[in-house]
Amino acid sequence: MRDVCCVGVGMSKWGEVWERSFRQLFVDAATAAIKGSGVDHLDSLYVGCMSGGMFIGQEHIGALCADYLGMKGLPAAHVESACASGGISVRSAFFEVASGASDIVMAAGVEKMTDCSGDEATQALAGAADQEYEVFHGATFPGLYAMMAHAHMNAYGTTSEMLATVSSKNHDNGAMNPVAQYPFKVSVDQVLNSVMVADPLHILDCSPITDGAAAIILTSEEVAKKLGKPYTKITGSAVATDTIQLAQRDNMATIGSASIAVPKALEMAGKKLTDVDFAEMHDCFTIAEIMIMEAIGLYEPGKAGPAVMAGETRLDGKFPINTSGGLKSKGHPVGATGVAQMVELYKQLTGQAEGGRQLKSSPKVGMAQNMGGTGASSVVHIMEVV
Amino acid sequence: MRDVCCVGVGMSKWGEVWERSFRQLFVDAATAAIKGSGVDHLDSLYVGCMSGGMFIGQEHIGALCADYLGMKGLPAAHVESACASGGISVRSAFFEVASGASDIVMAAGVEKMTDCSGDEATQALAGAADQEYEVFHGATFPGLYAMMAHAHMNAYGTTSEMLATVSSKNHDNGAMNPVAQYPFKVSVDQVLNSVMVADPLHILDCSPITDGAAAIILTSEEVAKKLGKPYTKITGSAVATDTIQLAQRDNMATIGSASIAVPKALEMAGKKLTDVDFAEMHDCFTIAEIMIMEAIGLYEPGKAGPAVMAGETRLDGKFPINTSGGLKSKGHPVGATGVAQMVELYKQLTGQAEGGRQLKSSPKVGMAQNMGGTGASSVVHIMEVV
Repeated sequence: MRDVCCVGVGMSKWGEVWERSFRQLFVDAATAAIKGSGVDHLDSLYVGCMSGGMFIGQEHIGALCADYLGMKGLPAAHVESACASGGISVRSAFFEVASGASDIVMAAGVEKMTDCSGDEATQALAGAADQEYEVFHGATFPGLYAMMAHAHMNAYGTTSEMLATVSSKNHDNGAMNPVAQYPFKVSVDQVLNSVMVADPLHILDCSPITDGAAAIILTSEEVAKKLGKPYTKITGSAVATDTIQLAQRDNMATIGSASIAVPKALEMAGKKLTDVDFAEMHDCFTIAEIMIMEAIGLYEPGKAGPAVMAGETRLDGKFPINTSGGLKSKGHPVGATGVAQMVELYKQLTGQAEGGRQLKSSPKVGMAQNMGGTGASSVVHIMEVV
Repeated sequence: MRDVCCVGVGMSKWGEVWERSFRQLFVDAATAAIKGSGVDHLDSLYVGCMSGGMFIGQEHIGALCADYLGMKGLPAAHVESACASGGISVRSAFFEVASGASDIVMAAGVEKMTDCSGDEATQALAGAADQEYEVFHGATFPGLYAMMAHAHMNAYGTTSEMLATVSSKNHDNGAMNPVAQYPFKVSVDQVLNSVMVADPLHILDCSPITDGAAAIILTSEEVAKKLGKPYTKITGSAVATDTIQLAQRDNMATIGSASIAVPKALEMAGKKLTDVDFAEMHDCFTIAEIMIMEAIGLYEPGKAGPAVMAGETRLDGKFPINTSGGLKSKGHPVGATGVAQMVELYKQLTGQAEGGRQLKSSPKVGMAQNMGGTGASSVVHIMEVV
């Protein structure tokens, strides 16, 4: 396999973007990535999207996006792994460049979640769980993650303050991100006093419903050098699955798919976890960030919460997590999230993170962990400075 | 890129399979492919599916399928390009093996279409068209293909008899295919006298609503040789798109995406169209088969219909098309169709086609053309004997 470089990134507006449609959001992000990278064409396009069908009644999303980008004819495909769809998009583009089949491939992600009612969005998101054995019986995602949070609290004494500190930390970072849906600070007390959605998860423990798109452009190193702009390399890519039903897991207080995928991605990159300087993690609910920190071996089980309380994952901590604001503050257009994580890695590694959130430590290696459902899939990428 | 081999194939039961669920259909096809090939594990799984969301409310299909195959942990992803989703699944698996990242990858496809009402299925299928500019205004697929048929008739004098002959020929072949949904013969008169769905398309010009799954296993040649069973090689893979809206095409009487994808796939394989011995083509409606024959340069525009009437695409003709029975007779579980086309190529090239439909000409090179929507995407693969 040949080296794969990231030469440019783009984001649409994120939030309740009622004035832009699904296809317009995609085009906004895609054109920004094309302009930023300076490529004069694409060889292929992948679009991550969780459920164009249930959110807006639209499938055939690869062809739709190629067409509205003004590139009819372009090879294009839609990929899905629930909220990890964006990560799969990156991975698909990675393989196409790595194999030598294409030189310039766009990995995009997009979701339009606010064109339907809240009930319909909840139902669509539930498509990431097991329809027959979970959803049919009334389970929704806040409920499923609430059970996971209780399991973690029971096992390790994790507190609501620890969860709230994850939210507050991510909002601190997101307040500096110009595309964040909720670019403002939230205190630990505000989280603890916000309305309870599913005990112990308050609404400010939950990532929001978001419209948005993100895009990155991957090329061979030959092309990257010719473009003459800052570029990074993707050196590791891995995906792993787990039982789709939460009830069938051996341990509800961890994310087994992340435990498999992270070491595989690191091995591919020839790195150890201690070589990684910072990470974007899939904080769909605050408890998820804590579980992922432990599942990948960054902290012993039960030690991640106290580490968050001690500030170890803040911008100036020893292992910054979710410098972008994470899903909590930046927003979570489900199919776009995994691509947006790569956008943040690229910005941090090339010194272009806006608003004062640029890491001062001159990071060399970043990791993105993107997750589907209650962890039935995890997609992990390693990105490095050249 | 290294060579990619097809070492085994599997199909579930196809039809109105009310006694098997989505996941069970997938497992039926996947286990058949595993048993047939003799592989002892998989490195990765791709699942083509057009709309798990709209048909059965289920997304996260890669993880679901890996789990129910008894392989939790397995890297898995779902891919979609409407009715060409199966072709994208094959292409994704192809890249993963070709890149050297994995040695044994399953490309599967599955759709469960009869668990919802006919109205709901029509609405789900309409997701392959442009929701905002076609479906919103009432267009459905029989209507869109009827317009294409009229355009072709007006341009070239194509007749309803020519369309009906495509259907009758495909039913002749499907009558010999044990997995076909409608394994019986249909005469030209029966087609012409069947109920009109959208003028000029009778119901026997239309492919059916089908539950079903298909799976193939792709490996490196090193693995294929070790398995010690018949194998073929996939030597060409290409995908192309077109405007998603029919109204924006330059010419409604052809399939532009096939005109782009077929030469690209042939070039990759180092072949010419005259080297290809037979093909599976995406006969979602009878007019589609005629348009594809012309779009790829097999016949001049307007000459495909007369060629069908002359028997040139029958089993004993000079270029057999849809030896499996095609979508018309075999059935069309939309996400599975592109994979099932590859199953037929493998069977014909290894001399394993059942029921008397094995080509007597000892074919060496086969082609599969899988299509989404009104041709907004085409995925083409070339398969060869070793």
